[in-house]
Amino acid sequence: MTAQVLNGRELSKKIRFEIKNEVAQFETEYEVSPTLALVRAGDDPASVSYAGMIERTCQQTGISFEAHTLPADTSEEELVRLMRKLNNESSVHGIILQQPLPEGIRAEVVVEAMDPAKDVDGAHPLNAGRLARAAFVDSPQNVGPYFVPATPLGGLELLKRNDIEIDGQRAVIVGASNLIGKPMWLLLTRHWATVTVCDLHTKPLSEVTKQADILVSVTGVAHLISADMIKPGATVLDFGFAQLDGEWVGDVDYEAAKEVAGAISPVPGGTGPMTNVMLMRNTLTAAQRQVRLGKAASRVVPVSITPPALGDTSRPAAKAG
Amino acid sequence: MTAQVLNGRELSKKIRFEIKNEVAQFETEYEVSPTLALVRAGDDPASVSYAGMIERTCQQTGISFEAHTLPADTSEEELVRLMRKLNNESSVHGIILQQPLPEGIRAEVVVEAMDPAKDVDGAHPLNAGRLARAAFVDSPQNVGPYFVPATPLGGLELLKRNDIEIDGQRAVIVGASNLIGKPMWLLLTRHWATVTVCDLHTKPLSEVTKQADILVSVTGVAHLISADMIKPGATVLDFGFAQLDGEWVGDVDYEAAKEVAGAISPVPGGTGPMTNVMLMRNTLTAAQRQVRLGKAASRVVPVSITPPALGDTSRPAAKAG
Repeated sequence: MTAQVLNGRELSKKIRFEIKNEVAQFETEYEVSPTLALVRAGDDPASVSYAGMIERTCQQTGISFEAHTLPADTSEEELVRLMRKLNNESSVHGIILQQPLPEGIRAEVVVEAMDPAKDVDGAHPLNAGRLARAAFVDSPQNVGPYFVPATPLGGLELLKRNDIEIDGQRAVIVGASNLIGKPMWLLLTRHWATVTVCDLHTKPLSEVTKQADILVSVTGVAHLISADMIKPGATVLDFGFAQLDGEWVGDVDYEAAKEVAGAISPVPGGTGPMTNVMLMRNTLTAAQRQVRLGKAASRVVPVSITPPALGDTSRPAAKAG
Repeated sequence: MTAQVLNGRELSKKIRFEIKNEVAQFETEYEVSPTLALVRAGDDPASVSYAGMIERTCQQTGISFEAHTLPADTSEEELVRLMRKLNNESSVHGIILQQPLPEGIRAEVVVEAMDPAKDVDGAHPLNAGRLARAAFVDSPQNVGPYFVPATPLGGLELLKRNDIEIDGQRAVIVGASNLIGKPMWLLLTRHWATVTVCDLHTKPLSEVTKQADILVSVTGVAHLISADMIKPGATVLDFGFAQLDGEWVGDVDYEAAKEVAGAISPVPGGTGPMTNVMLMRNTLTAAQRQVRLGKAASRVVPVSITPPALGDTSRPAAKAG
């Protein structure tokens, strides 16, 4: 039996349409256009191409788009200054910082300069921390508003809209990355899955992957997951994207895997197209929160956060432990 | 064969002595006494008793201690005001907020009013987020300084000082709590374990626990873990503490389990005594960071963090997803 295809291309079109309607409604009601500012530095080709895709998705959903491109020889200070400027512009509701940044610039310093309320790709540790602290989905909310990185949020949406059962299932995530693997763990845990995260030191990997009712792969290693590593009937979510023999493929050997899996996301056309629409969803949410808070926003009490100081060589407590 | 005992009582004495020496050295060098402020409200007996234990550990390690106790009918605003006051007192290096708080007070609002640089029990989401984003232990530091909650940090220390191998091992954590289960997951993942987290919907639980080389339990359900749920030779770390037939016991049926496990922490006398010494360790670290930053601290640029507003009913994006 061939697996159900988790078609991100089709679903993202549907969601784009939903968002477009909501954006139009929002604009009519508040006379404000939800706006996303993209910040990048240098001319990394992947970064340029991704920026173009985001701009197109903005156009398709009616979200206003601003690109802020700094030269490759820009400084950390310059980027931080730009972040602070965008934080203070009430016409900008969402900010996305594209990586990689030029060498010598510490991404965490630039990311933490962003107002977490505008951090629509969930990159700021405050958003990561609120997600980490968030209660199970059926419990009362126990943290402030936050944003989840668009890619794992898109993966979750792909599961939910395809009626994949998460509650009580065993999920295995291959790859503990900060923007996909770890937030995906937290999202699936919040939905009552029993989640295992594998890394490079997991041996043998296949022994763990075969236990998965939901198998998530986030490595970028082409065809790392062969059909015999998949439990028959499992759901497979592929976040990989790499070249193999001149073709773009995922972490999973799709052709063979689809004969074993119960449901599987193809590459391309699976989790990829979901990312941009979830970024739009988050931008609209940011605009809604900011406009709703309205005048209250000007009464926000600034909290002093100690940023990683330039000369600070102290180690976190966890290192000592 | 009877298991190796992970004796937290003995180890905590040793670490207390180490910290006492470091505190004395620090005071000689900087003429500053590391100071912990404890904040609580009302007269919950467990909270009163725990506050007394922290005070004693402070005395034993030479750390100065201040108790700030508000009446049971205090308000959220009053607690937030106290937090801000302590944030601004340069003589206070660490703050711990004891829970539970009186009904009607949102813990997350009070916790987020704390300066993350003084949050020595790692309760602020910024600290949780930096821990969540932290790289594997052998990689360059990629986040600012942070604090890990004292209890999981103590559990990790108990494993390390007993030479328990973590790298490449399968770890299973029963209980996804914010102050123990989740940070323990992140700590073990950073140390290259393959970690699975179980919750109430994991069925059958024993099937998962039997896969653990390192089994961690954090439920507070007396004797939930029986000997037949443990893989022979596994390391068992018990964070439970509950009454059974008038005695204090852990999550694990210790007497039977110690005949199966390779190493096991008893209750009481295992992970419990480690918590307070790790809180002292974090307080000393906070004082070191703050004094080292010295004058730089006054140059900290406040970042505007939008706190969960009183009237804000917006849901986080994850809810929508």
